[in-house]
Amino acid sequence: MIASEKKLIESIRRLASRSRNRAVVQGIGDDCAVVRLSPGHELLVTTDFSIEDVHFRRKWHPARSVGHRCLARGLSDIAAMGGEPLACFLSLGLPAKLPQRWADEFLEGLVRLAKRHGVQLAGGDISAAPKITTDIVLTGQVPTGKAVLRSGARPGDLIYVTGELGASTAALNQLFAGRRLQASPSSRHFFPDPRLEIGSWLRRRGLAAAMIDLSDGLSIDLGHICEESRVSALIDSRQLPIARNATLQLALHGGEDYELLFTAPRSAKIPASIHGVKVTHIGSITRKDYRSAIKILDDNGKQRTLRPLGWQHFRT
Amino acid sequence: MIASEKKLIESIRRLASRSRNRAVVQGIGDDCAVVRLSPGHELLVTTDFSIEDVHFRRKWHPARSVGHRCLARGLSDIAAMGGEPLACFLSLGLPAKLPQRWADEFLEGLVRLAKRHGVQLAGGDISAAPKITTDIVLTGQVPTGKAVLRSGARPGDLIYVTGELGASTAALNQLFAGRRLQASPSSRHFFPDPRLEIGSWLRRRGLAAAMIDLSDGLSIDLGHICEESRVSALIDSRQLPIARNATLQLALHGGEDYELLFTAPRSAKIPASIHGVKVTHIGSITRKDYRSAIKILDDNGKQRTLRPLGWQHFRT
Repeated sequence: MIASEKKLIESIRRLASRSRNRAVVQGIGDDCAVVRLSPGHELLVTTDFSIEDVHFRRKWHPARSVGHRCLARGLSDIAAMGGEPLACFLSLGLPAKLPQRWADEFLEGLVRLAKRHGVQLAGGDISAAPKITTDIVLTGQVPTGKAVLRSGARPGDLIYVTGELGASTAALNQLFAGRRLQASPSSRHFFPDPRLEIGSWLRRRGLAAAMIDLSDGLSIDLGHICEESRVSALIDSRQLPIARNATLQLALHGGEDYELLFTAPRSAKIPASIHGVKVTHIGSITRKDYRSAIKILDDNGKQRTLRPLGWQHFRT
Repeated sequence: MIASEKKLIESIRRLASRSRNRAVVQGIGDDCAVVRLSPGHELLVTTDFSIEDVHFRRKWHPARSVGHRCLARGLSDIAAMGGEPLACFLSLGLPAKLPQRWADEFLEGLVRLAKRHGVQLAGGDISAAPKITTDIVLTGQVPTGKAVLRSGARPGDLIYVTGELGASTAALNQLFAGRRLQASPSSRHFFPDPRLEIGSWLRRRGLAAAMIDLSDGLSIDLGHICEESRVSALIDSRQLPIARNATLQLALHGGEDYELLFTAPRSAKIPASIHGVKVTHIGSITRKDYRSAIKILDDNGKQRTLRPLGWQHFRT
């Protein structure tokens, strides 16, 4: 059973005091948090739901993993802008009958990741709810005018991706098939590591023209870059960095890898690895083709249209 | 039935384009929104859940009222800091079987209030959910160091409240009793009007020492000021501005009035009305009394302890 609202807030406040960021002038305990940005910087804001039985299942995902994944989603969005995270805000809806221990471990998982990236838990809201419902808000900053947008891709740009693709959905499919998986700290499904250092590295050097994080899957997320930049793309299936336990289909359409997808002019010198993470050239941006936003070169060097097949809500 | 995720996002984007604030450099359509604060200002952030059957009921509250109330909660928190709202972010969880019309009217109610206060809907998240679940994030700004906090009350300060108290819970009690109420635009329950102009007026003149908005009820919210300021309070039941349809009990403990409660030094000249809204002196701040945070003078001039009885989640 969840203790009283007051006790829950007290325990969140205690945990939050472990994560500190000097930008936060007033954290939990007022009507609003007060955050001071560095001079010459703009604010970044992103919000992400995690809902029981939609984004996670209690029998598959330990509470620590749910807390970690919840924050990682928001951090990954900050990374995709080339930004620096400052403070997070947690709206937490819990069924009254949920064991208090679940809430405690969820918060521990979240705060541990927050500490690692210097992000302060600075506020939020709590409520009773029919299912565990969390909404995480991340605020961050980026030098004025320097955020890396989805809309910056130009025909001729090369397309790159960090790390490997498909691992998270491969693990999810195993869970769906009834396998029990250890939630190992190195698992990209249970404890994804948002690519903040890489996003910031690329932004500081002005190397990325457009960037997005891979949350819904390559076929959907590259589609977002194409739509916002009014371009098309050609990717080469033989160059995709497919994770060891995954397949080409999972690398193309699997979500929740939280890798970065970015484009850079052909002249930009993109190293083979950044901060120890592999960076792979997987294709190029082309002029807008109204019939197919994304084409893929298959094993035999034949081009075909790649349809978006990643995660979508309200899908029938 | 909710249309596809893509269509829902498109309709939100269309509606959002009606609300514009020049501070928003990049709105919906990227990994994060980008917001530019005025020089010499700090960021304010607040988040608030509204969950079906916890914060509202579909048979009692028209969708437009739910959208309005959802945003009003956040705006009221910005008002309580003396701040200026800039952009809002909506996380929206909907059951797949909900009529699309409900979502459309909800968004219309929210965007209409956003427009009225110059707040841009600049992002959010959507998801399937077992019950309608909304989380609203408000960002705003206030000149550096000038936010009015809960912690600024000092013994000897006078306590003031805007408007009248108890109207919202009085309406709620009528709904609980089975009465059908018209959701009139002037109803403080269905369409509360956050006191942004008053909060900002008080802050600009440096008149309010501590401030909070009345969302959980006077007995709880005044308790927050006492706790954060390490003081106690004495209020006079005979001075409370009780709404026409309410009672003393509802004025003391009823939530969701979204009036402002503030303290000011005895020397401060607080007018009897600000921006056309009545302002009432209801008591004074006293030295911290560990046995009772808040005392109340009853009709006969006798002091008794006022226990917090407003809304609490996970109450058994």
